[in-house]
Amino acid sequence: MTNNRFDNKLSQTGLSFQPLYMQVEEHVKQLIVEQRWKPGEMLPNEFKLAEELGVSQGTVRKALNGLTGTKILTRRQGVGTFVSEHTNQHSLYRFYPIIRDGKTPELPKAELLSLTLIKAPKNVVSAFGAKANMKVFEVLRRRILNNEFCIFEKIYLPYVYFRELEGLEDLPHTLYHFYQTQFNLTVQDTTDRIKADIASAQDAKLLAIHIGEALLEVERIAHSIDGKIIEFRISRCRSDKYHYLVESK
Amino acid sequence: MTNNRFDNKLSQTGLSFQPLYMQVEEHVKQLIVEQRWKPGEMLPNEFKLAEELGVSQGTVRKALNGLTGTKILTRRQGVGTFVSEHTNQHSLYRFYPIIRDGKTPELPKAELLSLTLIKAPKNVVSAFGAKANMKVFEVLRRRILNNEFCIFEKIYLPYVYFRELEGLEDLPHTLYHFYQTQFNLTVQDTTDRIKADIASAQDAKLLAIHIGEALLEVERIAHSIDGKIIEFRISRCRSDKYHYLVESK
Repeated sequence: MTNNRFDNKLSQTGLSFQPLYMQVEEHVKQLIVEQRWKPGEMLPNEFKLAEELGVSQGTVRKALNGLTGTKILTRRQGVGTFVSEHTNQHSLYRFYPIIRDGKTPELPKAELLSLTLIKAPKNVVSAFGAKANMKVFEVLRRRILNNEFCIFEKIYLPYVYFRELEGLEDLPHTLYHFYQTQFNLTVQDTTDRIKADIASAQDAKLLAIHIGEALLEVERIAHSIDGKIIEFRISRCRSDKYHYLVESK
Repeated sequence: MTNNRFDNKLSQTGLSFQPLYMQVEEHVKQLIVEQRWKPGEMLPNEFKLAEELGVSQGTVRKALNGLTGTKILTRRQGVGTFVSEHTNQHSLYRFYPIIRDGKTPELPKAELLSLTLIKAPKNVVSAFGAKANMKVFEVLRRRILNNEFCIFEKIYLPYVYFRELEGLEDLPHTLYHFYQTQFNLTVQDTTDRIKADIASAQDAKLLAIHIGEALLEVERIAHSIDGKIIEFRISRCRSDKYHYLVESK
């Protein structure tokens, strides 16, 4: 094996053995995090990448396959490999599983109720695994599907990652795309904990339903490509005409 | 390109063009459905498969990669490629997303309440997209996690696929493994529709909770490898101490 930067990295950090293509995969991921290539931008071809990284073309291909599999990269047949943007329908729907009964998925709109900088409440601190005196933006929104309110959501964003939100009076409907393009924070994976709850007076008012109806409560933690928790979200979802869809393979 | 069975297949059926490896993938899948190799059995090596199928080793590898990706096959490093069994923890948990709050996933046990052959009710007929006079086995069970009842489930299995269930007095806890080993029906993917509901008197009695508490109701449709609907299941899940977990990438 030739002496290349991945061998160096391996010996420097004393990591346990990892196949070369996985090291290349990690490295390319890191380059994307550092915005060497921006969302939507095309990567150099495999030959050039291989040359630059000092590895074989086969290794580069394997690494890019991995990143395509996890949707960090998108391949366009006959064109090239691109840094994924969260703009296409598929990737947006991946993160909006609330669907009207008997209908196909639809992109929800949102009404911003408030955006304020606050000291994080206890449940939020704990979701972020953070220290007690954490500052977060609290975004309150109502999501609209089919011309009616279907979700009331509280979104918490760490001040340290989202400073530039201060003073904004409106936000785009598609927040993940906004995080990516404005803050260079790409949501890579999410964990949802779904429970059932009874509608409170506030739920009833905001969602135009009755107190005591059953609701879905979804607590979501969203991680960035490099594994940071960038968003904690609590969604209270009408369940009378909507469901949460999970397709598993 | 040499004249091989896939070329023949292509010209015989007049299918629109499909890359060769995808045709090989379909063919191998079909061989698994036909039990050429049983769950847990090792496939011949790539070289032998390539020879038998009259395609290149690279094409076989690509096809097997696809089947590994969808978990139909499992690769064991340095050993070989096996037909997946639904026995390992990972594949079982894939299909049991109800988890006690604050705990790690646990394999649920089940208490069989009844197993009867009935004329399918309307909602069941519609879930299977079937004719009105469909016969199904109705399995009623209570699932046990952490030594308490957490889910009441109604499971519907088409008589045509599951005749041998008739007269059985007990069922194994892990049904998907049972379907696979006894009926050669492998669950390949599932679709869950999750809603919230209010506990009825029956729920309250079966799950030892109070009438009027909020519950999760999960309607699941399970497909076999060859795309048949083999099971429809309605689960009523306690939500006071349990949640449904979804991890998306």
